[in-house]
Amino acid sequence: MYCMKPERTIFVTNDDGYASKGFAAAIEVASRFGRVIAVAPEQPQSGKSQAITLFSPLYLKKISETERVTIYSLSGTPVDCVKFAFDHFFRDQHIDLTISGINHGSNAAVNVLYSGTMGAAIESSFYDIPSIGLSILDHDADADFEAAIEYGTQIVDTVLKNIDTLDKPLCLNVNIPTLPKEEIRGVKYCRQTRGYWHEDFFRREDPHGRVYYWMNGAFDNHEPEAEDSDEWALAAGYVAVVPVQVDMTAYNQLEKLRKL
Amino acid sequence: MYCMKPERTIFVTNDDGYASKGFAAAIEVASRFGRVIAVAPEQPQSGKSQAITLFSPLYLKKISETERVTIYSLSGTPVDCVKFAFDHFFRDQHIDLTISGINHGSNAAVNVLYSGTMGAAIESSFYDIPSIGLSILDHDADADFEAAIEYGTQIVDTVLKNIDTLDKPLCLNVNIPTLPKEEIRGVKYCRQTRGYWHEDFFRREDPHGRVYYWMNGAFDNHEPEAEDSDEWALAAGYVAVVPVQVDMTAYNQLEKLRKL
Repeated sequence: MYCMKPERTIFVTNDDGYASKGFAAAIEVASRFGRVIAVAPEQPQSGKSQAITLFSPLYLKKISETERVTIYSLSGTPVDCVKFAFDHFFRDQHIDLTISGINHGSNAAVNVLYSGTMGAAIESSFYDIPSIGLSILDHDADADFEAAIEYGTQIVDTVLKNIDTLDKPLCLNVNIPTLPKEEIRGVKYCRQTRGYWHEDFFRREDPHGRVYYWMNGAFDNHEPEAEDSDEWALAAGYVAVVPVQVDMTAYNQLEKLRKL
Repeated sequence: MYCMKPERTIFVTNDDGYASKGFAAAIEVASRFGRVIAVAPEQPQSGKSQAITLFSPLYLKKISETERVTIYSLSGTPVDCVKFAFDHFFRDQHIDLTISGINHGSNAAVNVLYSGTMGAAIESSFYDIPSIGLSILDHDADADFEAAIEYGTQIVDTVLKNIDTLDKPLCLNVNIPTLPKEEIRGVKYCRQTRGYWHEDFFRREDPHGRVYYWMNGAFDNHEPEAEDSDEWALAAGYVAVVPVQVDMTAYNQLEKLRKL
């Protein structure tokens, strides 16, 4: 049982858009901890990374409102949703936690960099709001979120109970394997796996005879044996949790460069 | 004088699109070191971060071709351009170096995360190609790139001369202040400044009476006195160079989380 604290306010967003099944799953998790306010993209925004909309206006729509859950859509990226919420729309409200997701598809390893779900979670952490990105390893629009809701709830609970001892900014990248709930071996705190994506580009002709290209990639894991990496944990049946920060300085190269 | 090695191939891309003045400046720098092949976005892509295009096809166009410089445009993001070039279009060619830019506007501090210019440079480094993102602190479409071309050339030269001693992946985030060339105090290797953006959202009505929002932000530097940070170096009149890596794990939080 999770203690209901109606005074808490949980912000929810995602990158698959407000109409996705995973978004409803995130609302379900969030509503166990308090009142929910949500601003999610109007359209699917997978792969939108930390992108922001500079060259076009953003339109807001109220999707639904109940006593405890209010949902808006915004015609922008996941990061736009977060900036709009915290710098403008909910500027004067206290937000206790952000949940971004639940994403249809893995955001483990370097996916953290391309992911709109994690873009939103990272951006939210900049406002000193503890932020949790939740993703499952299943792209299907009708994926089963039962295990994800259970483990998502457990991780949110752990964060909220330990909120005073955890450093800020706090951003967690949580990935949940596609296993029946009872086969998941628990939660494992990990580091980001090393490795990159390589793409195939399909080459086709459109109905007007113009050649087009469309990408579809595969992840190349550089360290499949690394037991402290998130890809290893997922393959072994664990929920993988990576704490995320955004200082991208390559400190090991800095000294070398200074000596050139 | 820079030694011409016509056997070298330099790849050029950017985020302002192939028609921008800064792109021509990057081609100018690159052509001093070898043959140039370029794939740049068809449309401006500022703020597109590491975004990739998953849900629509990409169209390629040859823009121009001379003996030493070939330029294509692609109807996607900066990262799409890099992936398309290295995973498909120039797959069988050896590329010695990537230059992304020259961006109209700063990519110092956390801008590295939102920037399409740096998205492309980061992505290129994943292919083990030394990659340099060049940016000037001037958003003007007609900005003066003279100092940027000179310092860009100097930094490319340094990287190519030391290529065997530098670790890979190598990705440099180079920002050049808006000062006359002779007032720039030199090159400083730095770390990424801590701090975040906060946005204002203009609220207006479109001609159809629908309310829209449009963001415009300001950077909040959390450590203006830090002399090893890139923002400090730029304010002091230096060209700031930050080596970039993409392991976003918050290692300092990992141990704490494991003990929860």
